Amino acid sequence: MTVKTESGGRIWGLGVGPGDPELITLKAARLLAGADIVAYPAPQEGESLARSIAAPHLPDGVEEYPIRISMDPKDFPQHDVYDIAADWLGDRAEAGASIAILCEGDPFFYGSFMYLFDRLSGRMPVEIVPGITSLTACASRLAMPLAARNDVLTVIPATLAQDTIVARLKASDSAAIIKVGRHLEKVRSALGDAGLLDNVRYIERATMEQEYRAAPGDLPDDKAPYFSMILVHRRGGAAQ
Amino acid sequence: MTVKTESGGRIWGLGVGPGDPELITLKAARLLAGADIVAYPAPQEGESLARSIAAPHLPDGVEEYPIRISMDPKDFPQHDVYDIAADWLGDRAEAGASIAILCEGDPFFYGSFMYLFDRLSGRMPVEIVPGITSLTACASRLAMPLAARNDVLTVIPATLAQDTIVARLKASDSAAIIKVGRHLEKVRSALGDAGLLDNVRYIERATMEQEYRAAPGDLPDDKAPYFSMILVHRRGGAAQ
Repeated sequence: MTVKTESGGRIWGLGVGPGDPELITLKAARLLAGADIVAYPAPQEGESLARSIAAPHLPDGVEEYPIRISMDPKDFPQHDVYDIAADWLGDRAEAGASIAILCEGDPFFYGSFMYLFDRLSGRMPVEIVPGITSLTACASRLAMPLAARNDVLTVIPATLAQDTIVARLKASDSAAIIKVGRHLEKVRSALGDAGLLDNVRYIERATMEQEYRAAPGDLPDDKAPYFSMILVHRRGGAAQ
Repeated sequence: MTVKTESGGRIWGLGVGPGDPELITLKAARLLAGADIVAYPAPQEGESLARSIAAPHLPDGVEEYPIRISMDPKDFPQHDVYDIAADWLGDRAEAGASIAILCEGDPFFYGSFMYLFDRLSGRMPVEIVPGITSLTACASRLAMPLAARNDVLTVIPATLAQDTIVARLKASDSAAIIKVGRHLEKVRSALGDAGLLDNVRYIERATMEQEYRAAPGDLPDDKAPYFSMILVHRRGGAAQ
């Protein structure tokens, strides 16, 4: 089911998955192939990750609309950038364009897309196509089942305070710590406090060419990139 | 990258997504098209959901291997069923067959596949292709962003005790309550205790033909099917 504006235009938020261009759904690939405009988040200079994932599926000559966002936290939340982009995209859809907005991973799982969604969905229907999240991509590449049966699975941003991370870890059977980056030392301490350091699995850039997986129980020495994740299971594995 | 046995056989665990056959990845569809054997969980009588999702992608004349599992909790965990299936699949892979094991949603997200994985992965490499989970499928169909920024997102099985559910809800910004089924009244009480009843969104059979979505803040009167989920966000929505 696809929702249209009165003019026949439409907007989709398309999850393009974690990095491997083959980890996009048939539905997202089909909608991309028919889009008039492809919009995507991009850094202020350089290439957009979402666009690079979707590149093999972009139709020839499609109109592109990069939404350039500062990566510097002091510039957040950048309401003006999303206001301008949402106005432009909404106007074009109302004029009849089919617009695909690309989202790394899944549009609704810790993505910036929700800022556009929040602005556009009050004006017109916006259909979401879910994508493969970093959560399941990391688990698959680490050959580590995430959760089974009665397991409580918690996604914990590494940006939280150490004692909050410890408390959430202690209340979970399985946890995924995301956005590790410069918070690695704090996370290592939190995992130690929770008695879970031996159970960690670490991965960066899952499914991308530069993927790196640490050995079970190992974490990097000093720093982690933004696209890194730590999975930990209290029983050592969900099948146990 | 695909891993092979010495004979050239291989085994994949393929996520086929939540129900809509178009919500399968290009990679899973490609591997399915080249499989010699397609295995899948099935009830003791009747159709397999995983097979029905993948049906449009099955190659003509492929050998099928249903793994028939009792749905009666008194028969769990059915180790013998998985032992027999893993032996048979492992033997066939070692004899050179390419085998796709179908998994509803994602193979490592609360799926029975991990029991096969646990038995097979000690014997030969098993590659996992992640799938769209019920988590992101439900969020997309409810137009409800799951989590943003520093949100803690918790997946809570409805099978847990009421006070455990309440505690996990209170420690989360966003939560997905899965396996609601006959636990609906307990979950309703837990949501009330956590002060979150007004923030719930309920959906059953997301992305399937029989999908049902309740209005915001509504839950069914008495009973929910197994394929139902309740999403709740403390702020009312992740973009807020």
